[in-house]
Amino acid sequence: MNAREYCFDGSRKLNLKEMPTCAEPAAKKKEYTARMEANMAECALLQEKLYAAGTEGLIIAIQARDAAGKDSLVKKVFGRLNPAALEVHSFKTPSKEELSHDYLWRLVKRLPARGKIGVFNRSHYEDVLVTRVHQMEKGYAMPARVTQDKNFYQKRFTQIKNWEQYLYENGYRMVKILLNVSKDEQRRRFIDRMELPEKHWKLSINDMKERSLWKEYDAAYEDAVNHTATAEAPWYVLPADDKWYTRWLMSEILLDTLRDMAPEYPPLDPAEAAKVPQAMAELEKELE
Amino acid sequence: MNAREYCFDGSRKLNLKEMPTCAEPAAKKKEYTARMEANMAECALLQEKLYAAGTEGLIIAIQARDAAGKDSLVKKVFGRLNPAALEVHSFKTPSKEELSHDYLWRLVKRLPARGKIGVFNRSHYEDVLVTRVHQMEKGYAMPARVTQDKNFYQKRFTQIKNWEQYLYENGYRMVKILLNVSKDEQRRRFIDRMELPEKHWKLSINDMKERSLWKEYDAAYEDAVNHTATAEAPWYVLPADDKWYTRWLMSEILLDTLRDMAPEYPPLDPAEAAKVPQAMAELEKELE
Repeated sequence: MNAREYCFDGSRKLNLKEMPTCAEPAAKKKEYTARMEANMAECALLQEKLYAAGTEGLIIAIQARDAAGKDSLVKKVFGRLNPAALEVHSFKTPSKEELSHDYLWRLVKRLPARGKIGVFNRSHYEDVLVTRVHQMEKGYAMPARVTQDKNFYQKRFTQIKNWEQYLYENGYRMVKILLNVSKDEQRRRFIDRMELPEKHWKLSINDMKERSLWKEYDAAYEDAVNHTATAEAPWYVLPADDKWYTRWLMSEILLDTLRDMAPEYPPLDPAEAAKVPQAMAELEKELE
Repeated sequence: MNAREYCFDGSRKLNLKEMPTCAEPAAKKKEYTARMEANMAECALLQEKLYAAGTEGLIIAIQARDAAGKDSLVKKVFGRLNPAALEVHSFKTPSKEELSHDYLWRLVKRLPARGKIGVFNRSHYEDVLVTRVHQMEKGYAMPARVTQDKNFYQKRFTQIKNWEQYLYENGYRMVKILLNVSKDEQRRRFIDRMELPEKHWKLSINDMKERSLWKEYDAAYEDAVNHTATAEAPWYVLPADDKWYTRWLMSEILLDTLRDMAPEYPPLDPAEAAKVPQAMAELEKELE
């Protein structure tokens, strides 16, 4: 197995029932954790070149149900990169100011500069997932031609595809991750959050309501992935019950993507290079 | 030796000539690197509590001459923290938009939310260091009462102290680091940047000009530290010739500061706690 098996790039349809939530049986935690660390060491070298070159940016958008492991994925995988060239942005319930703008506004505001890797913990996909499951668009302070449009989400899918294509055409790549956790594993993790004091801060009883809408979310995830998966901005639907396996897959995807971007240290600017011999001579003269 | 020996909190004056640029002779690289890693593991646990609590923010402002090791300090020390609760902001030559505002404007814009650690790679201190050495204030597009003021930098020191005190009074701490590199070590690092292709991207021949103003910077650093060192926002002047030693000191300072902040996981909100028994029962019922 490799990460490509979990990839959706528009060439096939996602059916969540067919996707595993666990590690493949032959995989061993210790081995895969070591592989993840090795992958991330290589990613860190490529990240430095990406930063030095400053010509291309990479966005990793992570979507998932509650307790699927977004936060720990960020900590354990992206924590291996240089924080100077990494930005993590968590998109929570939109603020009043955010809601008074178009839904991509808050994403655009936090777009990383080229040369950096940006991790979006939740993203613009919230606007075709949670909003859709709860039909929030009906209550939006927008003209009726928008809120009453039967094709509201169809149009958003097109808008999102266009925006992601626009970013690609302007020096960015985006990779979209869906952490696929089982209902059973989510139950166990919710109980942990209720029982363990150090996990209380992650507990939101409101998550129980989202859990009760499991099938509605299934449909929303499938529709979102199937409408927005492209070769330039692919989705990966990763099994999330075994965190060590998810982390390894994330490291594989990141490494594949960075290798494909193939960043290189930029050559010395010719104007600077012309000044090097004199500068070098000055520095050496100090030793005399 | 411990980090306190490099601390300036207003109780004594900085004289750069008296400050070491090298590790203390008895310190061994391997041992101090292991100590740094152990410190940072503890810092990461405290960082999670700081993030969970979300009541206090920490800003680490790093100033230094060129090639003193700011970037590698960020990578090697702060890279041990969770990037989700860490922000690194590099303040380079101000943009035209930044220059058309007051000098603290760009800092305020990038202030981390409470709960996070923000690293400022260069900071508002540039505005009393490089600007002062080059007398840039004379050319600023501001009224003559400002640009011609004989007390221009004296006023800035007061403004900075007031701003830092304001932050402290609003739930932030700031720790200011000056990396103290020797002229000899800077020479070696400049030569590396000229000779090694993978370091070309860090080379700026203009840095040679700043090097020639070594004494002027000495005076500016001393004045800045001596006017803005307080118990609430202390300066640390760290030897920077031996990077492993600087990293260990940085980890000591961070750990001391976080321990002093003493963040705790927040207790469960009573309204949420009241709903836990029913939610727990629902989850357990699923297993029947």
